[in-house]
Amino acid sequence: MSDSASARLATVQNHMHINACAAVEEPKKKTPQESMAEERVKATFPVRDLTYFLDGGEKFTKIREKFMMELERDPTFRMYDIYDLTKDEMRERTMEKFRTIVHYVSAEPVPIFTMRMQTISMIDPGFWTRFGVHYGLFFGALRGSATSSQFSHWVSKGALALNGMVGCFAMTELGHGSNVAGLETTATFDEASDQFIIHTPSVTATKWWIGGAAHSATHCVCFAQLIVRGKRYGVKSFVVQLRDPKTYTLMPGVNIGDIGKKMGRDGIDNGWIQFTNVRIPRTNMLMKHTKVSRAGEVKEPAMAQLTYGALIQGRVAMVVDSGNIAKKAVTIAGRYAAVRRQFSSNPHDVQETKLIDYAIHQYRLMPLLAMAYAFHFTGVETQKLYDTLMDKLESTQPGDASMGEVLDTLKETHATSAGLKAFCTWSTLNAIEACRQTLGGHGYSAYTGLATTYNDFAVHCTWEGDNTILTLQSGRYLVSCYREAMAGKAQPEGVSYLNDLHKLLNQGCAVKTNEEILSFDVIQEAWNVVTANVVKKAGEDFETSLKAGMNPEAAYEECSQARLAAAKIHSYGYIFRRFAQAVKGAPANLQTILTKVCLLYGLYSIEQNAGFFLQYRYFTPSQMDYVRSQVNTYCRLVREEYIPLIDAFNVTDYMINSPLGVYDGNIYEKYFDQVKRQNPVGQPHPYLPMIQSLLTRNVEDDEPLEDDDEDDE
Amino acid sequence: MSDSASARLATVQNHMHINACAAVEEPKKKTPQESMAEERVKATFPVRDLTYFLDGGEKFTKIREKFMMELERDPTFRMYDIYDLTKDEMRERTMEKFRTIVHYVSAEPVPIFTMRMQTISMIDPGFWTRFGVHYGLFFGALRGSATSSQFSHWVSKGALALNGMVGCFAMTELGHGSNVAGLETTATFDEASDQFIIHTPSVTATKWWIGGAAHSATHCVCFAQLIVRGKRYGVKSFVVQLRDPKTYTLMPGVNIGDIGKKMGRDGIDNGWIQFTNVRIPRTNMLMKHTKVSRAGEVKEPAMAQLTYGALIQGRVAMVVDSGNIAKKAVTIAGRYAAVRRQFSSNPHDVQETKLIDYAIHQYRLMPLLAMAYAFHFTGVETQKLYDTLMDKLESTQPGDASMGEVLDTLKETHATSAGLKAFCTWSTLNAIEACRQTLGGHGYSAYTGLATTYNDFAVHCTWEGDNTILTLQSGRYLVSCYREAMAGKAQPEGVSYLNDLHKLLNQGCAVKTNEEILSFDVIQEAWNVVTANVVKKAGEDFETSLKAGMNPEAAYEECSQARLAAAKIHSYGYIFRRFAQAVKGAPANLQTILTKVCLLYGLYSIEQNAGFFLQYRYFTPSQMDYVRSQVNTYCRLVREEYIPLIDAFNVTDYMINSPLGVYDGNIYEKYFDQVKRQNPVGQPHPYLPMIQSLLTRNVEDDEPLEDDDEDDE
Repeated sequence: MSDSASARLATVQNHMHINACAAVEEPKKKTPQESMAEERVKATFPVRDLTYFLDGGEKFTKIREKFMMELERDPTFRMYDIYDLTKDEMRERTMEKFRTIVHYVSAEPVPIFTMRMQTISMIDPGFWTRFGVHYGLFFGALRGSATSSQFSHWVSKGALALNGMVGCFAMTELGHGSNVAGLETTATFDEASDQFIIHTPSVTATKWWIGGAAHSATHCVCFAQLIVRGKRYGVKSFVVQLRDPKTYTLMPGVNIGDIGKKMGRDGIDNGWIQFTNVRIPRTNMLMKHTKVSRAGEVKEPAMAQLTYGALIQGRVAMVVDSGNIAKKAVTIAGRYAAVRRQFSSNPHDVQETKLIDYAIHQYRLMPLLAMAYAFHFTGVETQKLYDTLMDKLESTQPGDASMGEVLDTLKETHATSAGLKAFCTWSTLNAIEACRQTLGGHGYSAYTGLATTYNDFAVHCTWEGDNTILTLQSGRYLVSCYREAMAGKAQPEGVSYLNDLHKLLNQGCAVKTNEEILSFDVIQEAWNVVTANVVKKAGEDFETSLKAGMNPEAAYEECSQARLAAAKIHSYGYIFRRFAQAVKGAPANLQTILTKVCLLYGLYSIEQNAGFFLQYRYFTPSQMDYVRSQVNTYCRLVREEYIPLIDAFNVTDYMINSPLGVYDGNIYEKYFDQVKRQNPVGQPHPYLPMIQSLLTRNVEDDEPLEDDDEDDE
Repeated sequence: MSDSASARLATVQNHMHINACAAVEEPKKKTPQESMAEERVKATFPVRDLTYFLDGGEKFTKIREKFMMELERDPTFRMYDIYDLTKDEMRERTMEKFRTIVHYVSAEPVPIFTMRMQTISMIDPGFWTRFGVHYGLFFGALRGSATSSQFSHWVSKGALALNGMVGCFAMTELGHGSNVAGLETTATFDEASDQFIIHTPSVTATKWWIGGAAHSATHCVCFAQLIVRGKRYGVKSFVVQLRDPKTYTLMPGVNIGDIGKKMGRDGIDNGWIQFTNVRIPRTNMLMKHTKVSRAGEVKEPAMAQLTYGALIQGRVAMVVDSGNIAKKAVTIAGRYAAVRRQFSSNPHDVQETKLIDYAIHQYRLMPLLAMAYAFHFTGVETQKLYDTLMDKLESTQPGDASMGEVLDTLKETHATSAGLKAFCTWSTLNAIEACRQTLGGHGYSAYTGLATTYNDFAVHCTWEGDNTILTLQSGRYLVSCYREAMAGKAQPEGVSYLNDLHKLLNQGCAVKTNEEILSFDVIQEAWNVVTANVVKKAGEDFETSLKAGMNPEAAYEECSQARLAAAKIHSYGYIFRRFAQAVKGAPANLQTILTKVCLLYGLYSIEQNAGFFLQYRYFTPSQMDYVRSQVNTYCRLVREEYIPLIDAFNVTDYMINSPLGVYDGNIYEKYFDQVKRQNPVGQPHPYLPMIQSLLTRNVEDDEPLEDDDEDDE
């Protein structure tokens, strides 16, 4: 029934078309494949070179292609039937894949293995998560919080190679998510036995959402309130065994259940855990930072901050993932739009018009294509930022002279990754849905891929730091940078616009002709001016509250909406700068096309936030009209080569896993084939008796309902 | 793992809190139920009276409560296990419910039955759709397109009572959605046998998405190109039998398959149909409008438009549904926010702070609550508009003097319902996701309801008229109204601002003090001014293209983005007016609270579209700052009584079907109970051998991969 009503309407509107069509004698029409092929000849740039540039060089393209081939040919990574698997089948399929991946995790250097995982996330986000729980969270916690001797102990027990143990990460509780300080689970030191007693005191203290706990994990890193001699020392982490790795029976005092059905990523067996006086050796507490001695002395770390570099990793991964998933969504929607034809504004047309040739469809898709490019380059830069930080952290000891600078980098990278994780995952989730809707009714089929992509991706917005909370943290950082800048302290590159604050605040666009707006520098200045203003607004709100006598926490709370706005606008400008810098560094033969894409991203983002640019008078209303008109112009320009731009992402049909996004454009036959393969004709009728008893019932038994009795009920 | 990273971060930030907590000796904390109860005592208005007002009177509230009780106690409408049902189980459950509903459909007057269906849509959208396909589309097509004798023939065969037949609606084809004129299926008249031959000539002509076709329907109304004596007459509708109602075997020449898994609404068995020279009696063509005689003469209708009033019904239903589903989403998110506590900006707090007491959380939720109210009143008014139109259509014959006026009403209602369907379904879909995200990690659980609500609702944006196409149609109408107004023709109430066009275009906000902005009249004027300007922009773009020599279709195409903007802004103003009018008509004891909610909706909508209000200089930047600040103020004001405002929706826990949205606030225990009931502990391990073989494998077999061989592959 999809589209039926508008269809009926269309009947009226297009009455003339029909008669026109009737006259034409079966004219030669382009096949879907021809419709696609004609888009590829339009390329004015070497597509393969753009792929190399995106991947960071031919070498890495080859590695990615090697990964894609290995995965496509790996039977445990078969994807053709994935959209029809039940929750339990998905989970079993996920476990199958462990065997493949552990082979690589121990053999490949971390940067290469990271690339492999990034590829896997585009194919099977559920598995990516399940393995990430073991590798990124469980093993990452050991690496980050265990002493070196504790670390080698757990590695020797198989924590990396997954022989004899597989881990999960028991932090969140039913009643406690973002605020870890509020966790209720306790770890009480029992001096007599030299053990910790792990205990769940209430329902809300039940460990919740624990990925891998429901069925697969044998051990967990458990976060609990450390209590020694009746004194609380806050939340620390402890290795607690959950199951016997041979029999998989639960350990004494451990109660585990299945969290059950989720919106997506059903491949991961999330569970809940209750501990009832579970005893573990004292040495199972991860003591790299806080130490508890045999005698019950507690030694607290010198510099807690240094231990939190690790948490940034997950956010960086999600910024990268946003770019990758955006590429996938745009590839499906973009290729469909090159083949799908509907209506025509010219009665003499032999064939209906391609969706992509409608101005409105270009306006729906081209900015998302530009966004995918913007997020790609942002992901690359964020990864670099993170690697630099990690190097600094590992090469610096408390007390080093350079420590102050390292902490600044930590602060900046932390705030930047927080803001970008929220901004990119939000934008990508919206982009997936927007792409899904451009498929019309077919976007609602599971087999066209974007429905599942949406459901799998959505969790990025609330886990590893709820997006709203992360955005507020980033806004908090901007407020403190603003105050430092006002106090004359030079600010780092990411917020360098604060160094020219006074110059920027009341600056308008100084161009003589509108055409001059179409430059990286003007657009960057536009963002700097607007960002400076919104950050100033947040900073002033904060200080007003301070002057009114609020404590800093309350004052930050009071200006939360201004902080949110500041962080959002800051991210727009930040991402545009990353994109523009990448374009400037691109090979000559890619400059022209990438410049168009980058300008489209900049102009579109400005249009979407027109209110701020007019509010702070950087653009006049007529300049803003010009920006709007240029968004359309650049949509048209980018549309000319949009299929080559999509091809450059170099994502195989196997990874796309959508018949509407296939490279050759043969969408209808492949879609129909998939539907028939997954739902063969001529199957026995699943609920025949029910229908028969309905249609053959004795209708006289249908008693009318007495409407007047309501008041008596 | 949800929130784990931000959690770890929080550990740093809240270090001081922990120590503070440590000092406090187990203070008295409010239970979830107490946290909820304290919200209800804040009500300054009689909640029950507001429910009556929303329902249109106590009588209708009683009827709705009767429906809710009947459904809750009907075993076929059990919902506690719905989130775990497979596609096939969902479909079987759907068929179970037919038995209940056919009892009422034949017994209840249409307006009452419509209320029942509206209630059902909030409980089980899949069933609502499946039954709607039979009742609204199949039976509706008979009512709208069959001659009276044809109609009584099909009723006598059981088309209404579902004895001996159940129907579906075969319009959309694999390659043809919105453009029905492009359908490929043919209905060729065979004079010799006095039959039509229904035929599917190609893959893209395969009937697609046909709800009910996969397993349950015995008959369909099929849309096909009428061909008589080699001449095409465009798309007409024909009743085609698909299956033998006794054996459910397919009729000769009919090939049917299952469309399979979808994003949501799996309770409806969508299918594809191919006809291979299927013969039906000539009299199976629905001939109320176009007629084909025994001798093969084709008589075309005098006034095609009159036949399209019916299609508006589905859109009106979706406007109403948007309001209802928004209520459901806001109820879940709102009640959770009254109970869930996280962090605290005051170290001395005995307990963490309620989510709803954070300014940012109020900003996330209160505007959505206001939107739910706005959409409710808009739905009521749109339904009235539609009923009036239908009365006029039924009481008017071609040739009547009043026909011109009737056609104007048709045109207006058609455009209005098109624009509102798109606007309200888009906004509601976004609101569902926004509400889901306010649940943090728990929003990702299937049991908390909003994930499924999102997946079920999403289809509203693309079926019954793709939202983008409908918005463009509404923009097209606005352009033509603009041109009529310029030519001096008075415009109807819905677009009456066009009657004062010249007065409005350059009007600024004339208030002396900012406080005066806080009035229905000023906000309405603001919308009128901005709408007048954007409509004018679209109209001018259109005429520029005409002058440039384009044909009207191409000219409309050229201004499509301006049309889109015009339609969107028009809808904002339209909905605010509906809301404000409803408030003015509300009982005295509800005026104060409803005025706050309505002002919040108006101010928030303006803030969201600040660019236009600054662009056309209705508000100055400083007035816009005031509007922003007042959005926060009104969020705070509405927050004070937001639980009573939610209670007034009067949606039972059974209908909400989310443990986080329960009336009494006992969210954690009910959530935990549901998870345990659906996923009992102590079940046999589903994939034990797989994990064991992984953990006990011979690790020496793990061969390292040679990274240097890439280039050889």
